[in-house]
Amino acid sequence: MTHNRQWILRERPQAEVTGQHLQLRSVARPIPGAGEVLVRNIYLLVPPAMRLWMNEEDSYVPAQPLGETMMGITLGVVEASDDPALPVGTYVNGMGGCQEWFTAPAAQLMPLAPHPEVPLAAYRSVLDVQGLTAWAGLHEVCRPQPGQTLVVTAAAGSVGSLVCQLGAGLGLRVVGIAGGPDKCRWLREECGIAATIDYKADDVAARLDALCPGGIDMVFENVGGPVLDLLMERLNDHARIALCGMVASYNAGGTQSANALMRLVTKAARLEGFLVRDHFHRYAEVASRLQALVLEGKLKYRIDILDGLEHLTVALDRLFHGRNLGVQLLRLSPERLA
Amino acid sequence: MTHNRQWILRERPQAEVTGQHLQLRSVARPIPGAGEVLVRNIYLLVPPAMRLWMNEEDSYVPAQPLGETMMGITLGVVEASDDPALPVGTYVNGMGGCQEWFTAPAAQLMPLAPHPEVPLAAYRSVLDVQGLTAWAGLHEVCRPQPGQTLVVTAAAGSVGSLVCQLGAGLGLRVVGIAGGPDKCRWLREECGIAATIDYKADDVAARLDALCPGGIDMVFENVGGPVLDLLMERLNDHARIALCGMVASYNAGGTQSANALMRLVTKAARLEGFLVRDHFHRYAEVASRLQALVLEGKLKYRIDILDGLEHLTVALDRLFHGRNLGVQLLRLSPERLA
Repeated sequence: MTHNRQWILRERPQAEVTGQHLQLRSVARPIPGAGEVLVRNIYLLVPPAMRLWMNEEDSYVPAQPLGETMMGITLGVVEASDDPALPVGTYVNGMGGCQEWFTAPAAQLMPLAPHPEVPLAAYRSVLDVQGLTAWAGLHEVCRPQPGQTLVVTAAAGSVGSLVCQLGAGLGLRVVGIAGGPDKCRWLREECGIAATIDYKADDVAARLDALCPGGIDMVFENVGGPVLDLLMERLNDHARIALCGMVASYNAGGTQSANALMRLVTKAARLEGFLVRDHFHRYAEVASRLQALVLEGKLKYRIDILDGLEHLTVALDRLFHGRNLGVQLLRLSPERLA
Repeated sequence: MTHNRQWILRERPQAEVTGQHLQLRSVARPIPGAGEVLVRNIYLLVPPAMRLWMNEEDSYVPAQPLGETMMGITLGVVEASDDPALPVGTYVNGMGGCQEWFTAPAAQLMPLAPHPEVPLAAYRSVLDVQGLTAWAGLHEVCRPQPGQTLVVTAAAGSVGSLVCQLGAGLGLRVVGIAGGPDKCRWLREECGIAATIDYKADDVAARLDALCPGGIDMVFENVGGPVLDLLMERLNDHARIALCGMVASYNAGGTQSANALMRLVTKAARLEGFLVRDHFHRYAEVASRLQALVLEGKLKYRIDILDGLEHLTVALDRLFHGRNLGVQLLRLSPERLA
């Protein structure tokens, strides 16, 4: 076992990612240099943004170069160390790439202290970027006021489901929009979000009118497209839309209605993008609060784990067709080696 | 002279307003009741928003009812008074409608104290809603930082030209986008805005790249459409777009590119609508500061006056084809009667 499998971006996708754009190759396992550690990746996060990284234009990170190991957000364990700060056996979060092994200076990794009653994978999902994203978008961008109405799109997704529950915990009227009866049922029965809309089956406009009779004060937006237009048309005065992503447009372009955007003017409302990196200074505090909620059973989450690095394109395909149930992770190796 | 001419909304326009949608009728001049005054309208403001008011849906004001006197923002003079607070001869701002005379309770009108060296019409333009709109959008929404780049669309317009000059006065790098060489020349030679783009003749994308080599920090947006997409594609981190209007869409719908809107996410930027009414508490202070700038010759403006109430549709047509030079007013009667 001295090889290292890794995914290379071979060709930039114009629309959906397929096997022609990515190539799995096997190279020699890297050897850590002075002050470096060797990490065995256990979990690889597969976020919708991975598709953005593949575009020629820079996004919130520089564009992924062609022919190089695909960028990836990972949780792993130190298997060899030249830095006493990170002894062998330490679990670490890092930008470990879409590969099984990597080396890095210890300072580039974040050591974890997982709670024994919380699954390890939670530290690369609900208690990590997804949790901080949900918290920042809700508290810092939406700025909820008691009794207001919050609509969440991709509500059964990795971030949306947390926003729904955090919003309900604040006493907001929460409406979750998700695709399909299973996701809506999970939101209702597991997460306690009574008001759901199945955008694949329901008349979304009519359901919004019924569930938001007083209009919409806040939107946590992950999707874009026609549903966002319907939401904008129902905004109240001084409404806030936390724009977390527009996954509907990542593969294909798309447009938003100018008439719907005009509602931002007539309601003095705000459409505000945000990036979790602007909120990392709150990371420790927020992660600790979220872990407490998880341990109390007040913050439900789902992690959708596929085994094997070779399933990256399958995972991306699940994600863009809404077939993942919660945060999409790939498990690249066992949590503990036999 | 006991009649009163007024415009009635006969039919809601689907696209551009023409003579078929509005009807000019003559009725009896109203008689003021107890506590009311009779006002002779002198100036009628013809803002782009007038087109919005004609739609069936409410905008930031309730929709204009069919068959009733078209709503209008006016400056007039009291010709008969049953309230000692507003003696005959007082100039007043008010919502006097698209008509020559109206009556109202004194409390609904704002008395003016025009400076002898400032044209009366300025009190229904630069020193009124346009000035406060420019000030609020720039200071309260864009929140300028020293050395940042501000792009203003409809830059030769009634609000845009003020934003350009106020921004330059703050030491910002200001780029004005306007339609046609005359408007651009006026901005450069009269208003001192060196960097202009003629969107009708120039390659807007190339000019933006040349004039904003460090990207765009703030946009004061009046127009929407393809130019807004180009601006969004060039936003810097934490950029702010003050969305004052989207005149490109008022007549016809239209769309914005989802890819361009995604830039709000990747740059953690903000697209924020605003309404001048949320800033009226600053009115006296801002108007006084703007009047001082006007008297010092540091705030140039143009007022485009057409004579005669009957020219309302002509004025709207000028406005939506960008042929007005500055604030579009109709003069309905002389400032001082002979």
